[in-house]
Amino acid sequence: MTPQIGFIGLGIMGKPMARNLHKAGFPVMIWNRSRQPMDELAGEGLKPADSIPTLAQRCTVVITMLPDSADVADVVNGATGLLQYMSPGSLLIDMSTILPETARQLAAAAHERGVTMLDAPVSGGDKGAIAATLSIMVGGDRTAFERALPIFQAMGKTITYCGSSGAGQIVKACNQIAVALNIAGVAEALALGQAAGIDPDIILRVLGGGLAQSKVLELRGPTMAQKTFVPGFRARLHLKDMNIIQATALTYHLQLPFSSLAQKHFQMLVERGYGDLDHSALALTVGHVDE
Amino acid sequence: MTPQIGFIGLGIMGKPMARNLHKAGFPVMIWNRSRQPMDELAGEGLKPADSIPTLAQRCTVVITMLPDSADVADVVNGATGLLQYMSPGSLLIDMSTILPETARQLAAAAHERGVTMLDAPVSGGDKGAIAATLSIMVGGDRTAFERALPIFQAMGKTITYCGSSGAGQIVKACNQIAVALNIAGVAEALALGQAAGIDPDIILRVLGGGLAQSKVLELRGPTMAQKTFVPGFRARLHLKDMNIIQATALTYHLQLPFSSLAQKHFQMLVERGYGDLDHSALALTVGHVDE
Repeated sequence: MTPQIGFIGLGIMGKPMARNLHKAGFPVMIWNRSRQPMDELAGEGLKPADSIPTLAQRCTVVITMLPDSADVADVVNGATGLLQYMSPGSLLIDMSTILPETARQLAAAAHERGVTMLDAPVSGGDKGAIAATLSIMVGGDRTAFERALPIFQAMGKTITYCGSSGAGQIVKACNQIAVALNIAGVAEALALGQAAGIDPDIILRVLGGGLAQSKVLELRGPTMAQKTFVPGFRARLHLKDMNIIQATALTYHLQLPFSSLAQKHFQMLVERGYGDLDHSALALTVGHVDE
Repeated sequence: MTPQIGFIGLGIMGKPMARNLHKAGFPVMIWNRSRQPMDELAGEGLKPADSIPTLAQRCTVVITMLPDSADVADVVNGATGLLQYMSPGSLLIDMSTILPETARQLAAAAHERGVTMLDAPVSGGDKGAIAATLSIMVGGDRTAFERALPIFQAMGKTITYCGSSGAGQIVKACNQIAVALNIAGVAEALALGQAAGIDPDIILRVLGGGLAQSKVLELRGPTMAQKTFVPGFRARLHLKDMNIIQATALTYHLQLPFSSLAQKHFQMLVERGYGDLDHSALALTVGHVDE
């Protein structure tokens, strides 16, 4: 039987994800804090809910796609949150990027009410959300993961079971660490090379042919060399991810000095008003910096 | 006419490079501070010189492959250095990795004596040197570069003209920046993921499928996850390169904070006695660190 899916959070990511579920043939009930995206999707055949409790009562699978840990904690486990209304045996999938610790706590709270919760953050940006090519990293019960697979396949291409609750969030955090530092590496390589008057195409070609090669170099190198930073993935969102990483490192008593430096540079970028530029704009914080 | 090539510096890199020139049909005269590698190559048909002046007088192309800037400056421009003895019109190619500033100064000194000098540092390690698959980054006069191309082709695969004197060294420096930070990114991603109990194969697979992909992740990720650090490229050599990068950044009034942090971590690694491990052993300086 095709499950009735509830989808909460119709932002730049959530709206196309809900739309893709509908296109794949799932009945989708939607809820969003602001009305506009609900009206838009209602015109396409998705069903607006009048409240979160209504959605929770009507759906056997509920997906959340929200800005941060506090939003998810409130919608899932607040006074009038999903867990007050979802039926035992139903499935809750949080696809937001949040603290792994919060993901684990909410999964435990869900479990107490007989609801299974998966953490399933994504990468691939709004383009991946629109094209249904997201990479989805999933933590939680393996059987629930398998049950949810057709749902994930309607929204993403590379779907990976990462381990128990929180594991999806951890792997997403790992991904954001590597991306941030690959950006920093390309940024400083270009800063030095360009200061010395080297043609950036030569730098990118030489580096791309050896151990310095990276997807960031390939996709963002040319635009970083030109200092054009059209998102893509916004710097303020990478800052949010770096904050999650630092907080998580602390809980494991880990020192991640390179990630910590990247956090500081994304913070600077946001403070200077560049938070809505692509994250590769980290390049603006190294090299010739006006103090 | 096939030029008589002189090759100075028969270390882990220089020895196989000289051998490959000989194999390609060039007559090669060799000199090294210690006798052993000269004797070895003499047995293969390369011709040992009795001194640097003799080699300089007999060869129309001289290649140097030495540990650092001071060695090259001494051999090229010391009291009994190459420039005192090389004939006007001959070609001097330094393939060591040294300060771009030193490369430019020596090229200027060579020019005053009618000798053309190219800086042509390499990447690809001893494996690349043995297999003649080095990447060679060349700075200096373009015509001299074209004249030297058959020589480079006997030692390397990817040969790139990068610009005027020092440009080869700059691009090599750019390469080492990106590699160092890609290593740092993989190191911290694995540190977090493994501390949280995630199977590193999952981390490497997910990261390799998206924007976090890099050659470092692909080639060194699996060994870094197992904390095995067989070189490869030795940490103490990457430290030397990071020192060059910091000194060069200073001459351009550039701030390269991520490279600076990488320098500090390679320094720590060397101080702890790990300088002869692969540079991916940078991973030992992040995560759970015993203080």
